[in-house]
Amino acid sequence: MTITITAFERSPDGGKGLARDTRVRWALEEAGLPYEVRLVSFRAMKEAAHLALNPFGQIPTYEEGDLALFETGAIVLHIAERHPGLFPADANARARAITWMFAALNTVELPILELVTVKLAEGDKPWKAARLPLVEDRVRARLNQLAARLGDGDWLDGGFSAGDLLMVSVLLRLRPSGLLNEFPSLDAYVARGEARPAYQRAFAAQLAINAAPSP
Amino acid sequence: MTITITAFERSPDGGKGLARDTRVRWALEEAGLPYEVRLVSFRAMKEAAHLALNPFGQIPTYEEGDLALFETGAIVLHIAERHPGLFPADANARARAITWMFAALNTVELPILELVTVKLAEGDKPWKAARLPLVEDRVRARLNQLAARLGDGDWLDGGFSAGDLLMVSVLLRLRPSGLLNEFPSLDAYVARGEARPAYQRAFAAQLAINAAPSP
Repeated sequence: MTITITAFERSPDGGKGLARDTRVRWALEEAGLPYEVRLVSFRAMKEAAHLALNPFGQIPTYEEGDLALFETGAIVLHIAERHPGLFPADANARARAITWMFAALNTVELPILELVTVKLAEGDKPWKAARLPLVEDRVRARLNQLAARLGDGDWLDGGFSAGDLLMVSVLLRLRPSGLLNEFPSLDAYVARGEARPAYQRAFAAQLAINAAPSP
Repeated sequence: MTITITAFERSPDGGKGLARDTRVRWALEEAGLPYEVRLVSFRAMKEAAHLALNPFGQIPTYEEGDLALFETGAIVLHIAERHPGLFPADANARARAITWMFAALNTVELPILELVTVKLAEGDKPWKAARLPLVEDRVRARLNQLAARLGDGDWLDGGFSAGDLLMVSVLLRLRPSGLLNEFPSLDAYVARGEARPAYQRAFAAQLAINAAPSP
C-alpha cells in the first residue's frame, strides 16, 4: 500500500531539515519503506482538505490505504510497530523506547520550542532580551539531565531506536543557538544520529525540495 | 505482578487532580488494574534513587516487575496496549487513538503549559500582563481547532479511548483560567470525562492524599 506524507511546499528553515516531515522521512528510511510526498502551501494547510487530515493545520500527515494519521510521534510509532529497524524485539525494551519518544517530544522539546517562541513569535517584543536567558536555562536544565542519563552510551537505551530518532531530531533544533555545544556528549550523540545513512537520505530528500529554485 | 506508581507527597495543586499521576491512576482504573503508590517529596525527586527511575526528576513513574517506565504518555500507552478499556480493537482506530494521545500532550498541552509559565514561573516578571493575552490567544487557537474536530461527538474518534483520557486531562488544566468556558462543547467534553467512574476513583485517590492533614 502506498504511503503518502505531507511536507511544506517551502520549509520555513530553508532546508535545514528541522521541519517535522524530516523525522517521518527518517523513520521511513530506517524501516526501508518507499513513500510519496505531497507538498502543501501555508495557505492550503489551513483549508478544509488538509484540516480533514490534521485538524491543527500542520505537517506532516500520513496516509496509507484508508488510514490517515497526524502527529509526528504517532506516525513514527506506527511505522516502528509494524516494521523492523526502530524498536528492540524485547517487550520491556520496546516500552522503554516508547518512553524516550514521549520524553523527546514532551519533556525535552517543550523548553526548546519556548526558545523558538522567544526568538521568532515574540522576537519583536520588549521582553525578549530579559526572557531569553531564563528560557535558555530551562533548556540547559533538561540537557544536563539528559546528558547525565546518556553517560558514555551511544544511544539512550541499548541500540538505536525510535526514541533516539526523535531525541536527536529535537536536539538538532538547538544547533543554531549554540546550546548544544555546551554539552559535548549530546553534541556527539546528535552527530551519531546525523551520520546514519537513513538520516542522510531523509535530509537529502527534504533539501532537494527546499533548495530548489522557487517555482 | 504488582504495579507501583509514584506521586507527589504533596501535590502543588493541593488535590485538584492536575498532577500527572492522576492521568495514570485514571488509565489504571479504566483498565481495572490494582496499583500501589509510593509518595515522593520534592527533595527526593531530585535524588539518585528517583532519577534512576526518571532522569528528569518528575512524577509519575511506573514499575511492574523488572520494567520501569516514566513519561505519562508512555505509561498510559503501555497500559492501554495490554489491557482492554482504553484502545479500540480495530488496528486503524487504535493508531488514530495514539495520534490523539500525542496531539493532547504535544500540540494542545504546549500552549497550556506556556500559560502556566506566564502565571507561575514568570508570575513576578514585568512582562506578565503583556504576555498573558498573547499566550491565551495561542491556547484559544488550539481550542478552536479541537472544537471544530470534535463537532457534536461525545469523544474524539468513536468511543472513549486513551486519546480522550489524555485530552480531557490536558484541558482540565484550563478550568481555573476560564478559557474552557469559552468553548461549551469542549467544556461538556471534559465534563463527560470527569463523570466516568474510573476518573472519579482516580480523583478521589489523589485527593485522599493531598487533602489529608500535613504529616
